[in-house]
Amino acid sequence: MGVTIHSVRRAQNHLAWDNSIPPVLRVQSGETVTFDCIDSSNGQVTKDSQVSAVAGFIYGQMDPVTGPVYINGAMPGDTLQVDIISIDIPDWGWTGLIPGFGFLADEFPEAALKIWTLDRTNMVAYFDETKKIKVPLNPFPGEMGVAQGKPGAFSTIPPYNTGGNLDTKYLTVGSTLYLPIEVEGALFSIGDGHAAQGDGEVCGTAIEIPMKATVRLTVLKDKPYTKAPHYRTVVKQGDSPKAGEFYCTTGVGPDIKEATRQAVKSMIEYLMVEHNMSRVDAYILCSVTADLRLHEVVDMPNFVTSASQVGMMLPQSIFV
Amino acid sequence: MGVTIHSVRRAQNHLAWDNSIPPVLRVQSGETVTFDCIDSSNGQVTKDSQVSAVAGFIYGQMDPVTGPVYINGAMPGDTLQVDIISIDIPDWGWTGLIPGFGFLADEFPEAALKIWTLDRTNMVAYFDETKKIKVPLNPFPGEMGVAQGKPGAFSTIPPYNTGGNLDTKYLTVGSTLYLPIEVEGALFSIGDGHAAQGDGEVCGTAIEIPMKATVRLTVLKDKPYTKAPHYRTVVKQGDSPKAGEFYCTTGVGPDIKEATRQAVKSMIEYLMVEHNMSRVDAYILCSVTADLRLHEVVDMPNFVTSASQVGMMLPQSIFV
Repeated sequence: MGVTIHSVRRAQNHLAWDNSIPPVLRVQSGETVTFDCIDSSNGQVTKDSQVSAVAGFIYGQMDPVTGPVYINGAMPGDTLQVDIISIDIPDWGWTGLIPGFGFLADEFPEAALKIWTLDRTNMVAYFDETKKIKVPLNPFPGEMGVAQGKPGAFSTIPPYNTGGNLDTKYLTVGSTLYLPIEVEGALFSIGDGHAAQGDGEVCGTAIEIPMKATVRLTVLKDKPYTKAPHYRTVVKQGDSPKAGEFYCTTGVGPDIKEATRQAVKSMIEYLMVEHNMSRVDAYILCSVTADLRLHEVVDMPNFVTSASQVGMMLPQSIFV
Repeated sequence: MGVTIHSVRRAQNHLAWDNSIPPVLRVQSGETVTFDCIDSSNGQVTKDSQVSAVAGFIYGQMDPVTGPVYINGAMPGDTLQVDIISIDIPDWGWTGLIPGFGFLADEFPEAALKIWTLDRTNMVAYFDETKKIKVPLNPFPGEMGVAQGKPGAFSTIPPYNTGGNLDTKYLTVGSTLYLPIEVEGALFSIGDGHAAQGDGEVCGTAIEIPMKATVRLTVLKDKPYTKAPHYRTVVKQGDSPKAGEFYCTTGVGPDIKEATRQAVKSMIEYLMVEHNMSRVDAYILCSVTADLRLHEVVDMPNFVTSASQVGMMLPQSIFV
């Protein structure tokens, strides 16, 4: 691991996954990079914003990602290991109902905006001044991805097999994400800071924040079965202590059922390769120990053109 | 709470939710009942079975439930509170791949059968004699439900808004299930013991067991918003200590997206009624703190005619 820490500046961002975007930085495999990331509104919402900021939202500016970073030696077919080292958060964040956006967009046509005060010492945010509801903060990057192999500009709003808007709340500090590499250098970018989010992110936004995220980027040659995002995480629940490590596969796509099938099939393949299980045994083990979660159910105004992200989470404590 | 403990015998079971089935027992609200329940195969699989038992499965005998029990005073529009007091498990269980059944049935056409030895002292089951994989046992009833208001016989295989084959792994001892009552007396039944299961139960079976389940049945008049199963649970993860209490709403239906919408809308209504939140605030709170899980994704050979069960789980630790 190198001692050099590289930096990518806030202005070095882009609004589409496009392998023709030139890298802003080149690093060695195993090096660490700090990314200064603007929030998902691309600065359209600030600490002092009123609801009008959300009502007049310009979609085309949403979800910028910082990068891309070229990792030397990364080749199509390799896997990019992303270790999440640290995330610095500000003292405020926002959650909005954006008209036409969100899992229940048809039932919530009006814009709404909530500005949160974040207590960085205790890592909580109170819902309002009555302090009756305390939201624990578990910051993570909503967006992490690499460029796709095919040419063209692909929106940063939905997730893809190469990552992107994963909105997966388990990718907090200490977690590791694995992404399939499709182009030379991988071309990794990151953004969309979230201070807290539930599985599903149902209203379409989390506690949205600008952030400084530091990650280690390592090229792996021995995880060819990673054809969609996989990750390792340690799950906390509520105020409890650590609740154990999980290995997770995901499925991505516009149809939740099909995305779920992909996540399950991917976990079966993982168990066959890494734990030498038969296909039938792996399927049975999934059924009795692994959990399906709807990480993300909304990303585009029209749900059927969108992509969902379903995770299958296998507790590592079962391996003696 | 009464000191009388009532019992329902193993032979007192039925294969359809049908409000014309006469009750096998009448109890007062708040009384406790022990149900002796055969396994989901209805005895077609035993400790000594070979794979032929699964290959020749008779679907029409699957998923019997024990009951029904009439609770005095229960009226349509009321809610039945089911507190899970204890579950006694045997020293064996089974998991099967039943041809045509399971979330990946098209990819696993061959029957398979695994007989597990259950270590009731340590509450674990090893996957095989190498003892490299240890499955923690968290027994729960896969089926709990009440009779539907409309006449007719409804299969016990899918879940309904009135309960049934919920296959929800969080309904372990110490948990509480709430079911909407549609007929006088509620007509509660229970069955389908599971010693361990992941969210989704993807291969179509869990570690299936016969069981003795003891529950307390209480009629509530003040939860009219319970229009589908709700529950309270304390989540354990892997080998960790208790990880906090959750209040959960669910959505049931053949379409996962629509079931998910129901679960979210139900949680919003719960927060409005029980926590006096505005509709928009409730939606925002769901997005930043509550988790969507696919409790059950398979129940019928043809998925599109089936019903999925999606849960939205809200950590109670957020309420100060």
